[in-house]
Amino acid sequence: MPRPPFVVALIQDAVTGDPTLSLATTIARIREAASEGAEIICLKELFNAPYFCKSLKHESFDLAEPIPGHTTEVLRALAAELEVVLVVPTFERQGPGVYRNSASVIDADGTLLGVYRKMHIPHDPHFEEKYYFAPGDAVTEGPNTAAGFKVWKTRYATIGVLICWDQWYPEAARITALLGAEVLFYPTAIGWLPAEKTEWGASQVDAWRTAQRAHAIANGVFVAAVNRVGFEAEPGTGGIEFFGHSFIADPYGRYLAKAETAPEIVMASCDPEQIERARRNWPFLRDRRIDAYGPILSRWLGA
Amino acid sequence: MPRPPFVVALIQDAVTGDPTLSLATTIARIREAASEGAEIICLKELFNAPYFCKSLKHESFDLAEPIPGHTTEVLRALAAELEVVLVVPTFERQGPGVYRNSASVIDADGTLLGVYRKMHIPHDPHFEEKYYFAPGDAVTEGPNTAAGFKVWKTRYATIGVLICWDQWYPEAARITALLGAEVLFYPTAIGWLPAEKTEWGASQVDAWRTAQRAHAIANGVFVAAVNRVGFEAEPGTGGIEFFGHSFIADPYGRYLAKAETAPEIVMASCDPEQIERARRNWPFLRDRRIDAYGPILSRWLGA
Repeated sequence: MPRPPFVVALIQDAVTGDPTLSLATTIARIREAASEGAEIICLKELFNAPYFCKSLKHESFDLAEPIPGHTTEVLRALAAELEVVLVVPTFERQGPGVYRNSASVIDADGTLLGVYRKMHIPHDPHFEEKYYFAPGDAVTEGPNTAAGFKVWKTRYATIGVLICWDQWYPEAARITALLGAEVLFYPTAIGWLPAEKTEWGASQVDAWRTAQRAHAIANGVFVAAVNRVGFEAEPGTGGIEFFGHSFIADPYGRYLAKAETAPEIVMASCDPEQIERARRNWPFLRDRRIDAYGPILSRWLGA
Repeated sequence: MPRPPFVVALIQDAVTGDPTLSLATTIARIREAASEGAEIICLKELFNAPYFCKSLKHESFDLAEPIPGHTTEVLRALAAELEVVLVVPTFERQGPGVYRNSASVIDADGTLLGVYRKMHIPHDPHFEEKYYFAPGDAVTEGPNTAAGFKVWKTRYATIGVLICWDQWYPEAARITALLGAEVLFYPTAIGWLPAEKTEWGASQVDAWRTAQRAHAIANGVFVAAVNRVGFEAEPGTGGIEFFGHSFIADPYGRYLAKAETAPEIVMASCDPEQIERARRNWPFLRDRRIDAYGPILSRWLGA
């Protein structure tokens, strides 16, 4: 008997500075998505906070929470009640002085299946993440079940989660797909700097989408990318206008659903049979030259 | 002193069954491109032959030539005369029973710099290449200068060459970029099967372009893909309509030039300073997790 399609929803929205309010409004949006048939719901990166990495402030570490913690406990109960899988990206305090940019995966019975910790940490003007986050650890096996690239078999599908900057790295998508992911989720916080928007805005959105649609194509998986929206000011700077444009693509890179810059629940039905069809039609995995890819483990190979 | 831009040209064309005529018309097109200012000119995959891999025939091996051989000798003289770099993809007879899908790189003084041998060999209905071609060897160092992924420092730019099916593999693009390529050339023979074209034609072209533009973005390099055009019949089948759509993209994945399905010389000026700018603006290479990519050397990692 073929497996039925699974329904993915992405909550593209903005935040206030009040985490309690952000959680409450997010819960309302999760309920709305579930009522429309969503089965796997992914929130944006650092979903319940402003994008605090615009500047370096000791006090921003106060936003971090352990996992499990208040936020995951509340959302575990909600997942069980609604029978939905939730991908919940938060600022994690893993230990004293060890903070992460993480995503909890909660199954449809409320089980916390595990945590993905962002592996590629950016650091650019206004996206100064290396100050806040230890990168995810490289170990992919052993007792530390939160290490490295991971997938989880949820009630509705086997899912992989990667976070924002990870989306530019074909290696991350490839490894997560080879682990068995049927859909790659990319919770994100990417935006326009007002001074650059006129010249670069359209091509930044197009590059962002193109890079991720290519992961779908190269690996024969669904890709679901969810970005925040709204302008967030930062004293002394022009702030960031988060550009939305969340989307869900099929294993050929075709859009199943896509948003622009307004708050929106982006939703699509994903047929797992399409993965098999895509990989038979273009059997890329068969022909990978795993005997010849060793040099990819180098930083630079040039003369 | 900043380096000047280099001018890339792609010869998108069709072939007849007559190799002598194909070479003569190609020479005319190379002269035309050079007269318009082209400095690095890339021909399509297996440039002087029909796409014979539509079927399995012993006699098709007669089309193969050694490198160096008549074709490369003629084109070496032309390169020296016009002071252009040439990328010349041909069916290579490397030794008795060892045939390759190769591309010779000829510098602007006529020197044969080396040969790239296609690393990823497809085999699908009507694209039955595993019958004809031994895949390129994995060794990237040592006395066999034709092995593995490679780049060449030509008079005008450092170039990498990958061939057709290679274009679906982010690993190949990554390694070639890390070797120092400023532009990745993708000579290609991809087409529509008439029975599929209505349903799949547009999304196949879009996936083909998207995958390659993503290599430009992920690596901060120029990408130049050249496909053949024209319908080639094959008894007992519907034949193949090669779909053209050759293009040149900048390091942000933006089109600098693009064709549709007519024969065309696709040409663009590529500013090497753009590579440095792109890699400073989105410093992906800095943050690669080379400590965590080991699993990419596996065929499958799933449960």
